[in-house]
Amino acid sequence: MAGVGLPAIPLNPDSGEPLYRQLYASIKAGIQSGEIGDGARLPATRELAGQLGVNRATVGLAYELLEKEGLLTAHVGRGTFVRSPAVEDGLISFASSRPDGELFPVEAVQQILDQTARDGEHVRRLLQLGSPLGYQPLREQLASDGPGEVLITSGCQQALDLLARAFVQPGDQVMVEDPVYPGLREVFHRTGIRLIGLPVGEIGLDVEALELALRREHPRMLLVTPDFQNPTGTTLPLEARRRLLELAEGHGVPLVEIAIYRGLRYEGEDIPSLRELDPGPSVIHIGSFSKIAFPGLRVGWVHAPRAVVERLAEAKQWCDLHTDHLSQYLLHEFARSGALEAHRRQVLDAGRERLRAALDALGNCAGLERFTRPQGGMSLWATLRGGLEAERVLETLAGRVAFLPGSAFAVSRRHAQSFRLSFAGLRPAAIRRGIGILSEAARQARAAGERYGAPHMAIV
Amino acid sequence: MAGVGLPAIPLNPDSGEPLYRQLYASIKAGIQSGEIGDGARLPATRELAGQLGVNRATVGLAYELLEKEGLLTAHVGRGTFVRSPAVEDGLISFASSRPDGELFPVEAVQQILDQTARDGEHVRRLLQLGSPLGYQPLREQLASDGPGEVLITSGCQQALDLLARAFVQPGDQVMVEDPVYPGLREVFHRTGIRLIGLPVGEIGLDVEALELALRREHPRMLLVTPDFQNPTGTTLPLEARRRLLELAEGHGVPLVEIAIYRGLRYEGEDIPSLRELDPGPSVIHIGSFSKIAFPGLRVGWVHAPRAVVERLAEAKQWCDLHTDHLSQYLLHEFARSGALEAHRRQVLDAGRERLRAALDALGNCAGLERFTRPQGGMSLWATLRGGLEAERVLETLAGRVAFLPGSAFAVSRRHAQSFRLSFAGLRPAAIRRGIGILSEAARQARAAGERYGAPHMAIV
Repeated sequence: MAGVGLPAIPLNPDSGEPLYRQLYASIKAGIQSGEIGDGARLPATRELAGQLGVNRATVGLAYELLEKEGLLTAHVGRGTFVRSPAVEDGLISFASSRPDGELFPVEAVQQILDQTARDGEHVRRLLQLGSPLGYQPLREQLASDGPGEVLITSGCQQALDLLARAFVQPGDQVMVEDPVYPGLREVFHRTGIRLIGLPVGEIGLDVEALELALRREHPRMLLVTPDFQNPTGTTLPLEARRRLLELAEGHGVPLVEIAIYRGLRYEGEDIPSLRELDPGPSVIHIGSFSKIAFPGLRVGWVHAPRAVVERLAEAKQWCDLHTDHLSQYLLHEFARSGALEAHRRQVLDAGRERLRAALDALGNCAGLERFTRPQGGMSLWATLRGGLEAERVLETLAGRVAFLPGSAFAVSRRHAQSFRLSFAGLRPAAIRRGIGILSEAARQARAAGERYGAPHMAIV
Repeated sequence: MAGVGLPAIPLNPDSGEPLYRQLYASIKAGIQSGEIGDGARLPATRELAGQLGVNRATVGLAYELLEKEGLLTAHVGRGTFVRSPAVEDGLISFASSRPDGELFPVEAVQQILDQTARDGEHVRRLLQLGSPLGYQPLREQLASDGPGEVLITSGCQQALDLLARAFVQPGDQVMVEDPVYPGLREVFHRTGIRLIGLPVGEIGLDVEALELALRREHPRMLLVTPDFQNPTGTTLPLEARRRLLELAEGHGVPLVEIAIYRGLRYEGEDIPSLRELDPGPSVIHIGSFSKIAFPGLRVGWVHAPRAVVERLAEAKQWCDLHTDHLSQYLLHEFARSGALEAHRRQVLDAGRERLRAALDALGNCAGLERFTRPQGGMSLWATLRGGLEAERVLETLAGRVAFLPGSAFAVSRRHAQSFRLSFAGLRPAAIRRGIGILSEAARQARAAGERYGAPHMAIV
């Protein structure tokens, strides 16, 4: 990759601010505005120093600061590159459904940390051992929207794990959507359970298929993500939610609602959650701050009838005693102060743009049989035409664009021609570029398949 | 309880420091030195203002500061009392082996929080999803003392849980000390494992009993706490450690060293850890910040060969993705800056005093058959004379003094006449008073047992 020209850098030797700080701030602003693009190569220190008429050490110091902040990365023999969380070494990655770190509400968190640092007695209490149930003010805040109790967990992943431990025995059957989030599948695989995958259509879980399955099988638990399901991004309509609740109740199957993407609706109208439709004892609701705020602080929760929460709390005690105090406190403050809601609005604005960019670009992509059209969340699900396998396209892409092939989400079906595109962590320009490259790779892979015959093609 | 006379309080109106701050500092020093005892009643503000010749509001302000720090508590209609974390409403509790919150290095933690709050880009990185292995700088810091890799866990409890998940199958046998920490026992009970309890003597695990047991049984794992074992407080001598390593290696049994109390030696000389004696692949070492620093931030670790760490990391990923970032960072800074070591020295000074107070008071306690004499840690183990059961004494105490009876720590033996005294969370005066009350209760329980006969007495 050739070195890019930097935008004009106005350095003022008389400003009192050291030159290296001015240079640092200027390049940083360029990266953040997008003027200096992800993956761009910066001039070598000697070269830039010459251009600007400054000492080479000045440039070195500025680069060092930028590297420390993760904005630049160096490759031996190749130079210095602008680094984006999802665009590294020129790779555009749709593979991870983590939030975009550049949207993080860093200032609000700094403010809470600063405020915490001032109250010594509060810090003292946070440092002491706590309750397996969680930090009481946060529990109350989260339980305020309905009956039942709240258990704080170390993220949604632990909530799933505790449910598996407390309520499922080896040999039991558990029903999940197919395709499904691999972390959910692994929780149950590990304990020797038979997973039954229910098909997911354009509008989420196929409730008719569920009805048929419940005539033959007696699962110990049914787990559903009604809003912006991972990986498909699909959302279950109101009528299907009502039917789902009836079926679960009629067959006496505990229903777990994974609601971690629910706060991320970019378009359309909210549909009541399963818990809102039935606040009774049959719904176990899982929430998390990871997707609407940030995942590095591991805080999720289960909102459920008291008896369920008590059993989960006992399991939690032998897992890790309790969830980290400082993070529980920080997220409580973050929500209480209104900063969470302000941040969510920004995430929704960015998400709307990114979703639009992804759907538009996919509309121009010739190689697809179909793709889902989510109204929120972080991912969508696309299926290649003519039996072409997603792993074949991934090979053709050779590290320029990444995504997770359908096989990663498989339960009872293979999903070999499908793949997940996680769009929420990428800027619109990268999304468009990435899908363009992907489209071309699909064309090449198809051509190669037609040339060399069957082994690259799956039976549809 | 009658109001106590306060020690002389030297107030200086000309010092420039407000009188209420002088008064506050003076009372606080009295509480911390023990001159003003736990549970003591302070004079009413009017009364103390009169005695000192100051405004009543001055005393009110000083009391308010002390209350905010948790040092005073008010009871309606009864007055203002000195409050200790483990001495509430007159109960002296030896039941919990958590560290004393009053010793927490609050200022050092405040400083780190404050410093973190200033570095926005660093906060941004902490908020993003991390590695199941843990925060890299902390991993490197902890791994620096020898070969192998480090996995960061959500406290020692999770380290035990991950070991059980990754390496033990239902039906396997696992060997542990008997008595043992209940959280360790529960981790293995839950997964359907047969626990074999090995006796613990005055100098820790009975290695001869282990040798005999290993001739008959083939455990999947052996877990030992060589330093200041919970609940007995005992420490394994060097020769026994060497023999233990030989036995474990000879029988091909993975040896787990729980070293979470190891940093808490108040007297005597350090003995090399199992890992130090054998840095090879046969020892899995578990550490934690909970006992030497604070348990509210849930950070522990496993130091072990790479292959072990990789399997644990996979299990960890499906448990909770990774340990909370903010706490990992905070503890890394706490250790790196030297604040951990400074704090540990204070904890050692307090622990030494408390251990001495406990051992002296127990020496005057007539009802005991024997008790262990730890050189560190948080707990010791006492056994009642003449077959008197610890639960009987607990009933006689009727909420004035609390401890955990031996049955709570039982694996293969009952330990009905024994109990754990956790001394590290109480000030020396409370320890002396508590053991005095306990001694009298044991006398009463014995007298009642002799009067009414057998049901209160166990067969020794």
